[in-house]
Amino acid sequence: MFTATRTDDDTAGYGTTAEHLSRLVRDVPGFLGEDAAHTPGGLSISVAYFRDLAGIEHWRRHPEHVDAKSRGREQWYERYVIHIARVEHSHAFTRP
Amino acid sequence: MFTATRTDDDTAGYGTTAEHLSRLVRDVPGFLGEDAAHTPGGLSISVAYFRDLAGIEHWRRHPEHVDAKSRGREQWYERYVIHIARVEHSHAFTRP
Repeated sequence: MFTATRTDDDTAGYGTTAEHLSRLVRDVPGFLGEDAAHTPGGLSISVAYFRDLAGIEHWRRHPEHVDAKSRGREQWYERYVIHIARVEHSHAFTRP
Repeated sequence: MFTATRTDDDTAGYGTTAEHLSRLVRDVPGFLGEDAAHTPGGLSISVAYFRDLAGIEHWRRHPEHVDAKSRGREQWYERYVIHIARVEHSHAFTRP
């Protein structure tokens, strides 16, 4: 789970990189899906779901992801928090 | 973690109820904080953090929360997913 506040730096390829990573992560073994929401001018929350910690570790060390995180700290993010969490229970509702 | 897509029903007190619940949850024993992001016309992700499962259970059974969830299924939400997850590791970055 990745909770972030962006800088004002919109000129530095953030969108292109974000889309590229979003495609790359799909090839990580054990990747199950992701959810993302972004309040304009405010917080972004992205959640990537993996079958196991090995998948998370694979993604954490992926070279292009490592590069992007480094650029993120230099240019794109004012602040972020990452939580690694184990899903213990899930419940879904869909309108009939 | 609460991931939701709203209906078009904006006339039914959603905002007022959401703000009210947001104040109520702060009094739940073990409540640690919350994050929320909403893509206009798209997904909302809200994450409430609790010290332990007892806090989550307390909030799950809170009468006004139970009422709101029922109204949510009737009027406000097209679809939602709740994940109860145990945070195993966290990492934060703040721009110097």
